[in-house]
Amino acid sequence: MIANTPAPPYYAVIFTNIRTQIEEGYDETALQMVQLAEKQDGYLGHESVRNGLGITISYWESLEAIRNWKQQNDHLIAQSLGREKWYAAYKTRICKVERDYDFFI
Amino acid sequence: MIANTPAPPYYAVIFTNIRTQIEEGYDETALQMVQLAEKQDGYLGHESVRNGLGITISYWESLEAIRNWKQQNDHLIAQSLGREKWYAAYKTRICKVERDYDFFI
Repeated sequence: MIANTPAPPYYAVIFTNIRTQIEEGYDETALQMVQLAEKQDGYLGHESVRNGLGITISYWESLEAIRNWKQQNDHLIAQSLGREKWYAAYKTRICKVERDYDFFI
Repeated sequence: MIANTPAPPYYAVIFTNIRTQIEEGYDETALQMVQLAEKQDGYLGHESVRNGLGITISYWESLEAIRNWKQQNDHLIAQSLGREKWYAAYKTRICKVERDYDFFI
């Protein structure tokens, strides 16, 4: 569940969001988008949690990989439906991961 | 709940974690750390969600502000207790936020 990313530098897209009450199509589309992202060049992993607020972080090799994912056709349709139906608010942050460290029991 | 951060560039610390079963002291310390972080120079906001996996992202003006927070005395004690008691695993990623965009109904 903690994404097994390579040594930095790499990139992260932090997508913080609040949903509307509209459930129709959301779960299916969210799953499709995960499966589609996993097939994109430069995809490194993702982490996602919701509990009221939702945070999904996807990790990428390069800014170009992020641009390609943002412009992917089915993803463009999902983004549009997201604004029309599923999200009351969101913020997307494109980041360069400069350093990381971890701990495991 | 979505952090109201300024225009980029700024910095993010993504803390992705899995808890142990040990609850003792966790909620109080987590709250104290939020209150302490808010008083640190260069603190810009934070977002936090847990649902099994936990993701907490804090936002900062500079890498120096992040270093100062990492070395803050009470925070050092909390980090040590975290590894001893509360966390089964975590990964911390230090990131530069290069671009952001948002949407609100």
